[in-house]
Parts: sequence; structure tokens; C-alpha cells
Amino acid sequence: MVDVSTLRAALPEAMVVTDPDILAAYRFDRADDPSAGTPLALVRPESTADVQTAVRWCAEHRVPIITRGAGTSLSGGATAVDGALMITTEKMRGITVDPTTRTAVCAPGMLNAEVKAAAAEHGLWYPPDPSSFEICTIGGNAATNAGGLCCVKYGVTVDYVLGLQVVLADGRAVRLGGKQLKDSAGLSLTRLFVGSEGLLGIITEVTVRLLPPQPAACTVVGVFPTVRAASQAVLAVTAQTRPAMLEFMDHTSINAVEDMLHMGLDRDAGAMLIAQSDAPGPAGLAEVALIEQAFRAHQADEVFATDDPEEGEAFTVARRVAIPAVERRGSLLLEDVGVPLPALPDLVDGVAAIAADNDVTIAVIAHAGDGNTHPLIVFDPADREEARRAQVAFDQVMGLAVEMGGTITGEHGVGRLKKGWLPAQVGDDVMELTATIKRALDPHGVFNPGVML
Amino acid sequence: MVDVSTLRAALPEAMVVTDPDILAAYRFDRADDPSAGTPLALVRPESTADVQTAVRWCAEHRVPIITRGAGTSLSGGATAVDGALMITTEKMRGITVDPTTRTAVCAPGMLNAEVKAAAAEHGLWYPPDPSSFEICTIGGNAATNAGGLCCVKYGVTVDYVLGLQVVLADGRAVRLGGKQLKDSAGLSLTRLFVGSEGLLGIITEVTVRLLPPQPAACTVVGVFPTVRAASQAVLAVTAQTRPAMLEFMDHTSINAVEDMLHMGLDRDAGAMLIAQSDAPGPAGLAEVALIEQAFRAHQADEVFATDDPEEGEAFTVARRVAIPAVERRGSLLLEDVGVPLPALPDLVDGVAAIAADNDVTIAVIAHAGDGNTHPLIVFDPADREEARRAQVAFDQVMGLAVEMGGTITGEHGVGRLKKGWLPAQVGDDVMELTATIKRALDPHGVFNPGVML
Ligand SMILES: Cc1cc2nc3c(=O)[nH]c(=O)nc-3n(C[C@H](O)[C@H](O)[C@H](O)COP(=O)(O)OP(=O)(O)OC[C@H]3O[C@@H](n4cnc5c(N)ncnc54)[C@H](O)[C@@H]3O)c2cc1C
Ligand SMILES: Cc1cc2nc3c(=O)[nH]c(=O)nc-3n(C[C@H](O)[C@H](O)[C@H](O)COP(=O)(O)OP(=O)(O)OC[C@H]3O[C@@H](n4cnc5c(N)ncnc54)[C@H](O)[C@@H]3O)c2cc1C
Repeated sequence: MVDVSTLRAALPEAMVVTDPDILAAYRFDRADDPSAGTPLALVRPESTADVQTAVRWCAEHRVPIITRGAGTSLSGGATAVDGALMITTEKMRGITVDPTTRTAVCAPGMLNAEVKAAAAEHGLWYPPDPSSFEICTIGGNAATNAGGLCCVKYGVTVDYVLGLQVVLADGRAVRLGGKQLKDSAGLSLTRLFVGSEGLLGIITEVTVRLLPPQPAACTVVGVFPTVRAASQAVLAVTAQTRPAMLEFMDHTSINAVEDMLHMGLDRDAGAMLIAQSDAPGPAGLAEVALIEQAFRAHQADEVFATDDPEEGEAFTVARRVAIPAVERRGSLLLEDVGVPLPALPDLVDGVAAIAADNDVTIAVIAHAGDGNTHPLIVFDPADREEARRAQVAFDQVMGLAVEMGGTITGEHGVGRLKKGWLPAQVGDDVMELTATIKRALDPHGVFNPGVML
Repeated sequence: MVDVSTLRAALPEAMVVTDPDILAAYRFDRADDPSAGTPLALVRPESTADVQTAVRWCAEHRVPIITRGAGTSLSGGATAVDGALMITTEKMRGITVDPTTRTAVCAPGMLNAEVKAAAAEHGLWYPPDPSSFEICTIGGNAATNAGGLCCVKYGVTVDYVLGLQVVLADGRAVRLGGKQLKDSAGLSLTRLFVGSEGLLGIITEVTVRLLPPQPAACTVVGVFPTVRAASQAVLAVTAQTRPAMLEFMDHTSINAVEDMLHMGLDRDAGAMLIAQSDAPGPAGLAEVALIEQAFRAHQADEVFATDDPEEGEAFTVARRVAIPAVERRGSLLLEDVGVPLPALPDLVDGVAAIAADNDVTIAVIAHAGDGNTHPLIVFDPADREEARRAQVAFDQVMGLAVEMGGTITGEHGVGRLKKGWLPAQVGDDVMELTATIKRALDPHGVFNPGVML
């Protein structure tokens, strides 16, 4: 066991935590991996310099580092490993909004919701909105290239990150990018670090681009007899327009949410779509009409449109709580598979077949407008046979996505849970290329061992 | 001198060219670097396999490779070096548009204009539009992350590249990304290769995302007494809306274009702005009114709006031919500096001061809406003293941009011409990080030696 006293000496006393009770709270992320290890210690840096000190110490003592934002990872990216130093960004706080350049410089521990709020104070908007936006950090969002509900129209995190500060494996801190919107100077390092899942460095500052406020949105809800009808309605919409949101919930998830929120959702529905249009004026009316028509043309039993923001928000909330709601029914294996849009109906059908074959419940929610689905495999961890079947289904769903030319992860990242399937998607040569870059930037494999590779 | 007979034997006879007259035509790109070297030979591969053969041969014989698209580089990225093998993608042709996924798979030698045309045949649109779009390749666009006129609203090349096929330094070909819109599986390698200026591999296929056709655009032209007034009008527009185009030309470039096109531009104007709105219906009318108002509020002598597409296109053409038009007045040193938008007026003023200080003509055109300017330093190469002053001014303009927190290149890339200034912008640590990645992927430095690093 490495002696942490030298680390303690190098940092303010209270910053290094070894109390087992506190450490225990940092072992798991939202993937709840039972094989989570026990860390050596936890560091709560307050500045880039603190992070550098901790990384240098780890490099010297060959102690692995697990970087942790808020631990909302659904792929096990922030799970502890034995003997690692956990570095949490929770005390790295602060944000400066510059309305003239429409940018914000954020400490990595700021929650996504706090970034949105700070932007809003200046009449500006930070679009990326993972369902976890109230509880996940901007640093974690950058590290995972988080998506969300509005990204069908507004793009994902990488589309908003203009600059980063990153602490590298040898403890140096580098600034990548900046506040300029267009920059071709040198390799696209900012874009390489976004989505690198903490493998290449620790992000200690994120400069994001902000937009003018989102125009008021109109919400359209459609209730469908089957998942196939709903997924075909998705194609009918996306073939004609790019809505500001296009979300999907199946029968199981609708019922799980209704159990939790009691908001009067149709418990008999096979599936539900929640769309939004934020096109202004008549263009918005036309887009809403087009969405309604596409829903009706694909067997929607009920179509409902509202320009009341609160009513609209209630449906967005319903979609956002779907994961925790379904989680009340058992443990979850969370998929994040995506396919090119036209393949969406077949993917959804295929998932249903896998559920039937393996006799497990799979609830499906989806950022349907960009072909990114979250089949949630529900199982009772006490029932070992069911847990085994759930694992088989988990495997088969990823296999199906790869077979259909899709991805094993549209937004949650590979983490620990999906790395076994990555080679099947990208091939051995790309795995080797990935490992080459990892080795070049982190030769001793200090950062997030076991994640992705 | 390396013997090319083994390469000749490995490829179809006519594919390997050593005729000095033909080679001469491939020594220079549009940067016209007088220090261009003499290549060993030229290869015109027709397939990824041909490229692999050539790269393997070069790797074995330690022959440097210069990859060439159409050679429209303005930063010397495709300039020959002594003893190198030039690999041109001009014979790698072909495109398949998939309207259901709204993607196109392009061979690298397809011209940007051909990609646009193929998309248009399916009622789709490929937005990125460098001014050189009729003469530059999609492979070159991906390698340089090309920008253009519409990127102020629609983004640059990287925003459209979903997948790549790349031949690596050891001759392996890898596929990165694919047709799915959202993909978090593994490191963001696609984004790393876009804009890598041929340093990391040869792009042999580009999969791009397509959009529904651009709505009809309305064009607004403003004529201003001074460059400062025009650049302040730019800020007044961008503070309120994101037009589909917002281009800037100064007095010198207006006159150069008028000499070439005789279209009746105002020769007395200090500067001209050309904006477009493609917002549909009343939103478009509102945006046009807003732009007109912003122009008038900043001393525009004349403001002119048209929804006639041909009339609008005439002004776009005027802006697009500005570089060749100014080039008729002498040799050019082409800048590509960018700053965060609020600094635009100061940058433009600073460039004027540098021109005066050094007694050289600097024409300025700009993709003003994203703060990316092209000061064009005009000089007579026969006048060695003027050429020297031009070089000093070239230097000072980049220094100014860096000092203002901007970039030495917003879209043309670093190439050979700007690499001396890259460290000043990004710092030594980022240079080392860049070199580390280059070394990891191309340990013998086969690809584009002398570019960027
Ligand atoms: C209910 C729920 C809904 C969700 N919905 C979405 C959604 O719609 N879209 C979506 O994309 N995700 C979603 N997620 C997943 C998760 O919230 C995102 O991946 C988020 O970006 C993680 O942020 P975090 O701060 O919690 O990071 P963590 O979970 O702590 O870490 C995630 C990964 O990033 C690394 N990391 C974190 N911070 C840094 C840093 N500063 N520097 C370097 N590496 C770092 C970690 O090592 C880990 O590998 C959801 C999660 C939950 C629980
Ligand atoms: C009049 C004029 C106007 C221009 N306007 C713009 C503009 O508005 N916006 C803009 O961004 N640029 C502009 N450019 C610059 C230039 O057209 C772009 O950089 C373009 O992307 C280069 O494409 P190309 O096919 O000519 O590539 P080349 O000039 O042949 O090569 C450019 C670089 O990319 C590398 N490369 C080329 N193809 C490949 C490949 N397949 N794989 C790997 N590396 C490769 C080369 O090695 C070189 O480093 C303009 C140029 C001219 C002459």
C-alpha cells in the first residue's frame, strides 16, 4: 500500500481524505458496478494547481487515478478501482460568463444546470441538456461528450466546447482552444479531449459557446399503439424537419413514470413520442402541424399539442425521469445503442425480440430523433438466473446495433461496462490506434485504468 | 536517390509518374512557396489499396509523402519537398448519396462542388462552402477542416464529417465513425483526423452528413465609409441574430473585384458587408430588417436588400473572387487571422496600422460573422525591399491576432507558411503534445514533413 502522507503534505490537510466511510460513498457511480474497488484515498482539489500536485504525486508513485465529476456515469466510467486515487472535481467551482463573446469559462465541478442558469442571467443559453443536467458536471459532460434532449437540433457537448484546460499525465497543465469560434491552428486537440472519458487527462476548465435564448417551444405529444408505429412516425418527422426535441418512451417506461409522477399518462399506450418545435412564429405553427400530421399518419391514437411552457415541461420531465422510474422496478442494465435513423424501427423490433427470447423486461426510451435508444434491461439481482439472462440480452442488444451498422454507445460512453463490445464495433486496428494515442499521452496508464481499453 | 522501380512494379504502370514536366506542375500549391522542392515521383492512386501500397513502399524506404488534393492550399500544406513522393487524390473519384440516412460517402478527390451537386440531385444540401468550392477536394476540406461563407450559421467541415477512411503511416487502412449521427464509442478519432493537415494519415474516403435544401436566401448589402463602421455593424448584427452569411470586403478588395467583374460596385466605399438571411417567411423578413437597421445604425451610406437569387449570387461571387482579384495586383501573403468577435473592429484597425507602418498595401476580406479575417498583403516580388516589408507585416498581423487572444489561422491551416507562429499562439506544451501525437501515429515522420511542426 502506497503511503499517502507525502501527498497529504503537498496539499492542504483537509483535501486528502482516507476516512473509509467517506471513501465508500465514492466507490460507485450510477452504473452501480458491484465489482467497484476500494480507493487508496480521495482528493478534492480546488484548483488546477491542486490537480497538478495530485497527478504528479500519482505519476511518481505509479498510483492510478480515477477522475470523478458527479458520478452520474451510466457506463461505469467513474467507478473506483483498488488502490487508486479518486480525484473529484466537486470543489472546483465558479463560472464567468462573457456576454460580448457569448462564452462561459467554467470550473469543471459546475453542474450543467448551473452553467445554464449562469448563461440565462445574461440572457444566453447553454443548449446541451442530458436528462441528468441537474446532477452532472460540465467537466463530466465534456469528458463524455454528453448528449441530451435538444441535441437532435442543437448538437452535443463537443459542438459547444471552444476551449479546455487539461492536466496531462506528467502533471503539466495545457490550454487548448480558446474563445474564438473558428480556429484551425494545429491538431484538433480540444475535440480529441472531448469524449476521451478521462483517459488522456483531467479537464480543469471548460470554455463553452453560448447561444441567444431558445425561442419559446411548442410541445407535441403522440400516443401510439405500438413501438413500431411510433418509430415510423419518427422517420416521417425527421424526413421533413429537424425538431428541437423528439423523444420516445415505450409502454413499460410510460407506466413506470406514471407510477412515479401520477400525471395521467395513457397506461395502455404502446409508445409515446414527445416532440418540440422552437421555430418562431408561422414557421413554428407549420412545424407543429407537420409533426401532428406525421403522428396521425402513423396510427397515433391521440395527438396533443400545447404552447403552454409548463404543460410542455411536464412531458419533458416525464421523459427525463424515465431512467430512475424504471429503476424502481429492479436493477438495470442500461443500453445506449444508436443506429442510422432509417434503421430505428428495426432496432426497436429487434430489442423486443431479444427481450422475448431471453424472458426479460426491456423498457425502451430513446432520443429518437437522432437514432439513439436506451433499452433498459430490468432484472432482480437476487434472481441469479434472471441476472444471467439480462446479461445475455445486454450483450445481444449491442451485437444487434453493431450488426446494423450502429454504435454500442450514442452518448454515455464506453466506460467499463461496454468496453468488451468496442472492438466488435470499431475493429482491432482502431482499438490499436486508440491504445497508441493513450500510450503516447499517458505512458504509465495512470488515468482511468480499465475504462474503454 | 531512392529507386522507384519497385514502386512502379507494385502499382499499375501509369500510376507512377516521374516525367519532370508533369512533376513540375505538382510542386506548388496556391501559396506559391518559392522554396518548393522537387519530388521523387508522383503517384495517382485510384483506390485505398493503391494508397496503401504507396504508403507501405514509402514507409519501407523512408521516403516522405506529400498528400495533395487539388493544391488550393493557401498555407503551403501541399507544397512539394525534395525527394518526396507526391500522392494526389485526383483520380480517387466517386460518390454515393444515401437519401434515407442523409449521408454521402465520397472518394477524397471529389470536388466540394461535386459533392454539393450530387447531394442536390437528391434534394439535399452539403453546406460547407469554401470560396474555392469549385476547385478544392472534399479530402482536402476534411484535412484542413475548411470553412467558408455559410459557416457562420452552418458550421465548418468537421460539423459534417461523420466518418473517414484513413491510411495510416504503416499502410493499414482504418474506418473511423460511420453513418450514425451520434456516436460516443471510443476516442473522437474522426474529429482528430479532421483538420490534421495530412500529418496523421491519408484520407481515402469521407462520409458526410447532408441537410435538407437551404431555404431561399435574401441578400443584404451595405456600403460603409470606413472599415471600423462596417466591423461595428457586424457586431450589431451578430449580437442579435445568426445570419446565413456575413462577409466583409474593404476598399482595396472592392476595387480589385470591380476591376475584374465590372459589376458596378461602389469604388469609393470604405468597406462593404454582404449578409444573407435564409430564415423562412416572416422570420426571414424580420432578420433582413434587423440587418438593414444594424447597417444603417453604423453609418452605411447605402443599404440594399434583394430576394432575387441571381442578384444575391452576384454579390457572393464578388466576395468569392476577391482573393484572385487582389492577386492581380501583385504577389500575396495571405493571412487568415481570427479573433473573438468583439475584438474584430480592433483587429481591422490594427491591420490598417500595420499596413501604414510598413508602407505596404493590405487588402482585407473577412468571414466577418465569425471573426475570421483574411488580410491580403500585396507586394511586388521583384522589389526585394517591399517583399521584406510585406514579410514583416505578415509577421506583425499574426502577432497582433495572438496578442488579442485570437488565432493565426481560422480556416486555412498552419501548413508551412504559418508554423513559425504556432508556438506563440498555443505555447510550448501544446506544441509538444502535438508532436507526441504525431510521433505516436507516424513515428518515422513520413507524412507531410515540414507542415505544422
Ligand atoms: C438519470 C440519468 C440520466 C442521464 N441522461 C443522460 C443523457 O440524456 N445524455 C447523456 O449523455 N448522459 C446522460 N446520463 C449520463 C451522465 O449523466 C453523463 O455521462 C454525464 O456527462 C456524466 O457527468 P458526471 O459529472 O456525473 O461525470 P462522472 O460520472 O463523474 O464521470 C463520467 C466520466 O467522465 C470522467 N470525468 C468526469 N469529470 C472529468 C474531468 N473533469 N476530467 C476528465 N475526466 C472526467 C470520469 O472519469 C468518467 O469516465 C444520465 C445519467 C443519469 C443518472
Ligand atoms: C481562391 C481561394 C479561396 C479559398 N477560400 C477558402 C475558404 O473560404 N475557406 C477555407 O477554409 N479555405 C479556403 N481556401 C483554401 C483551400 O481551398 C482549402 O484549404 C481546401 O480545403 C484545400 O483543399 P485541396 O483539395 O485543394 O487540398 P490541398 O491544397 O491539396 O491540400 C491541403 C492540405 O490538406 C492535405 N490533404 C489534402 N488531401 C488530403 C487527403 N485526402 N488526406 C490527407 N491530407 C490531405 C494536404 O497535404 C495539405 O496539407 C481557398 C483557396 C483559394 C485558392
